[in-house]
Amino acid sequence: MRISELSRLSGVPTATIKYYLREGLLPPGRATAATQAEYDETHLRRLRLVRALIGVRGLSVSATKEVLGALAAHVDDRHLLLGLVLGAIPADENAQPAAVPCAAEVDALIAELGWEVSPYAPARAALGETLESLRSLGEPVPLATLSAYAALAERTAALDLDRISGTDDPLEQAERALVLTVLMEPALLALRRLAQENESARRNAAAPEGGPA
Amino acid sequence: MRISELSRLSGVPTATIKYYLREGLLPPGRATAATQAEYDETHLRRLRLVRALIGVRGLSVSATKEVLGALAAHVDDRHLLLGLVLGAIPADENAQPAAVPCAAEVDALIAELGWEVSPYAPARAALGETLESLRSLGEPVPLATLSAYAALAERTAALDLDRISGTDDPLEQAERALVLTVLMEPALLALRRLAQENESARRNAAAPEGGPA
Repeated sequence: MRISELSRLSGVPTATIKYYLREGLLPPGRATAATQAEYDETHLRRLRLVRALIGVRGLSVSATKEVLGALAAHVDDRHLLLGLVLGAIPADENAQPAAVPCAAEVDALIAELGWEVSPYAPARAALGETLESLRSLGEPVPLATLSAYAALAERTAALDLDRISGTDDPLEQAERALVLTVLMEPALLALRRLAQENESARRNAAAPEGGPA
Repeated sequence: MRISELSRLSGVPTATIKYYLREGLLPPGRATAATQAEYDETHLRRLRLVRALIGVRGLSVSATKEVLGALAAHVDDRHLLLGLVLGAIPADENAQPAAVPCAAEVDALIAELGWEVSPYAPARAALGETLESLRSLGEPVPLATLSAYAALAERTAALDLDRISGTDDPLEQAERALVLTVLMEPALLALRRLAQENESARRNAAAPEGGPA
């Protein structure tokens, strides 16, 4: 297909595609004339992945290049691909794990659950930061409470993985995992807010505190 | 207690407390001398609520005043207090429900679940926006999938409500609900990311695609 068709199918403007080609984020097409090239399905898939890394995950062009390089080196390992695309595993081999607040609590939770997660996972620090700020407000989160939330997160994650399991191509699977993971976040928080409202209505109707208003 | 003690117990600087007093966010203390006043537990609790509305929910001083006024008018209704503090129910009686993208799908989900939620709940729009952006990316979310996520959100909300149930004072309960709801959000998203990584490791180890790397 021509670059115009690639643009139409991907929704990415031609000028942006040309920029990605110049930056090496997209491999060149097969030259058919001095100023024309043919592109195929692999370009379309790669373009979707680049768009997800830049537009959804918010990576810079150079960080995207680094992730794409790491992906190319590990195409056989679906778990690693997913981790690289989602940022749970760093593309840079020299990266150091970030400092995790309340690290002992985070480690204790992961050990109790028996979860297999990279020491680099940025979610460790995100979890630790919440534990720290709640503790500073006099609301420490006991391990048992955290485990109960984690058990529900486990089932949510199983739903997430089910949704990408129909995809054969490992890179396409990783791209869909990224899009579904990041874009579903506000929806999951919204569902919790709606569910809280319903649960509060239910509990307060079942045991009224002060009689009819 | 003196204002200095109120500052120490709440962690709010004296200058900020004086500002809140001038703005009417905090009722005046009992005057004991021309330039001195006594404060009590009700001031401390009110201060914690103001801090949560401004610092955690990010309200302006005038919006906080409006919420405090609405709370004062409905102290007997715990469900309403919770909704007002969390922003699920508007403090302004003339507020109009926000436009909800994919409103038919959001309504269908809430009807299927039998949830009791205000037409004003901002989470309706947040959910609809995600559904719209996923659809535009060719990833529409089927009602069955959404219901499965919602069932887990229901159980998460029950854990949330359990955590505030030990508090007798309705305003304190609402303040704790706000802090725990908002500050737990990044932790819940982090738990999902960690759980996804673990689930991916589990699935890809159980059914290796390409043999050992």
